[in-house]
Amino acid sequence: MTRLASFTDAKGPRIGVALEDGRMLDLSAVPGAPGAGDMLALIEAGPAALAAVRALAETPPPGAVLNAGAWRLLAPIPRPRRNVFCVGRNYMDHVAEGDRTRGITSSELPKYPQFFTKAPDCVIAPEDWIPAHKGVTEWLDYEVELAVVIGTEGHDIPKERALDHVFGWTIGNDVTGRDLQRRYGQWFKGKSLDRSCPLGPWIIPAAELDALNTGIRLWVNGEKRQDSHTSKMIFDVKEIIHQLSIGFTLRPGDVIITGTPEGVGYAMQPPRTLQPGDVIECEIDGIGRLRNTVKAA
Amino acid sequence: MTRLASFTDAKGPRIGVALEDGRMLDLSAVPGAPGAGDMLALIEAGPAALAAVRALAETPPPGAVLNAGAWRLLAPIPRPRRNVFCVGRNYMDHVAEGDRTRGITSSELPKYPQFFTKAPDCVIAPEDWIPAHKGVTEWLDYEVELAVVIGTEGHDIPKERALDHVFGWTIGNDVTGRDLQRRYGQWFKGKSLDRSCPLGPWIIPAAELDALNTGIRLWVNGEKRQDSHTSKMIFDVKEIIHQLSIGFTLRPGDVIITGTPEGVGYAMQPPRTLQPGDVIECEIDGIGRLRNTVKAA
Repeated sequence: MTRLASFTDAKGPRIGVALEDGRMLDLSAVPGAPGAGDMLALIEAGPAALAAVRALAETPPPGAVLNAGAWRLLAPIPRPRRNVFCVGRNYMDHVAEGDRTRGITSSELPKYPQFFTKAPDCVIAPEDWIPAHKGVTEWLDYEVELAVVIGTEGHDIPKERALDHVFGWTIGNDVTGRDLQRRYGQWFKGKSLDRSCPLGPWIIPAAELDALNTGIRLWVNGEKRQDSHTSKMIFDVKEIIHQLSIGFTLRPGDVIITGTPEGVGYAMQPPRTLQPGDVIECEIDGIGRLRNTVKAA
Repeated sequence: MTRLASFTDAKGPRIGVALEDGRMLDLSAVPGAPGAGDMLALIEAGPAALAAVRALAETPPPGAVLNAGAWRLLAPIPRPRRNVFCVGRNYMDHVAEGDRTRGITSSELPKYPQFFTKAPDCVIAPEDWIPAHKGVTEWLDYEVELAVVIGTEGHDIPKERALDHVFGWTIGNDVTGRDLQRRYGQWFKGKSLDRSCPLGPWIIPAAELDALNTGIRLWVNGEKRQDSHTSKMIFDVKEIIHQLSIGFTLRPGDVIITGTPEGVGYAMQPPRTLQPGDVIECEIDGIGRLRNTVKAA
């Protein structure tokens, strides 16, 4: 796996490849390496640039490798240029658990994906803290989601060509104020609180993982809360890209989070809300783990 | 009125003041003028910079004035850095007309503003064309709205301080695919078609207009369709800024469009949809007119 990372140290933010042994290939230290400095530049540089980075990662130039612990991960795209695009109610068991909280026992499958967005500044890095938003929400909740990073511009993309537009995969945590999500009718308000979109730990190139068929899990303080499989999506990644791109141009660097499976806190018996000190770990097989802690704020 | 404009000509995009006589004060031609080049830079430069521009506009340096017709308006913020923030169902008569299309005769006032967003790339300039989106939507519609441009960063902004955070006022047309808005449940999809957010013609500084008490109108091909008053908003600008900023940081250059009054096409008897060739004119007293034409595309 080529783990394309944004990271920082005393020299400032740049991109690299997180190696299996915990070290970081610093692309800015490789003369002529592509996309130096910025993940969006690497994405826009196209397939040849990605191929060059993958080749470098196979035999990292010794002078360009940073030791484990000498760097800190940023979100792979620290600040998307546009809304983070989101899909709601996209796993049947999650639709059913949500309906149960409203007394609905017989759930209907949504006929179309429900798109909403978060503001780009909501994105935070692996290990960054999530505010508890006390006084703002009584009901802070987590949602592990497969995140799709768009590589190639397009609109009205047919389903069978959709994966050609994907640059890679990462993990998103769609942190939500449940009470706000309901109170405001449209979901933006409850979904776009400050620092509510942990993203990472890195991007796996599209070709290196069948992200449409992989395990997806989430733990709070070591207790497994979500444990599902991306193949259970109601609208798979191909359908999501197709539908979202109808009359709407997707651009390189766009991030789409694709819905969460069952096991969110508000649907538990009794319901559980996130509290200061809670450690949330999101995992997708083939990508890795995204860990964040809730902080009183 | 100081009509702060983004414009372009053979020399490329920059900012200025659109003078009453049809000429343009080109701020880039004034040595040492603030915010040269970019409206976001002017907004971020703060009140002293705005005061300097207003003073220049009172006695424009002759060498810095472009003749009428020698320049073309851009959207005042041609490409916002984030989602365009939107409020739905914010005039009682518009809530009622929408409810009637669904057979609801007794409307309830929304208790909270319904926030959704458009992607920043949806913004287009005065006189730019709106695609008819044939094959995408059967039901393209218009919505004239007062647009608020944020000047000062803040979150959890109390209502009584909200107007201190406003840089100025402009006009937005929240072009909507009504069928998509309903089909996808959440409104983003129907609200964020390509080129669906005409914005302009310029920004009036906050202090120069009581935008909470002014007339708002829209014509299609010269036929008046919307004719109301911003004082009829259910949630006024102060309340919108307060609510949107709860747990969410507003930033300089953010654009909030504040809902449309009654008279949209889909609620007419019989319903009317926008067609190629239709000319839409949006007007707010004290700001001006925003004109766009629908094109087969």
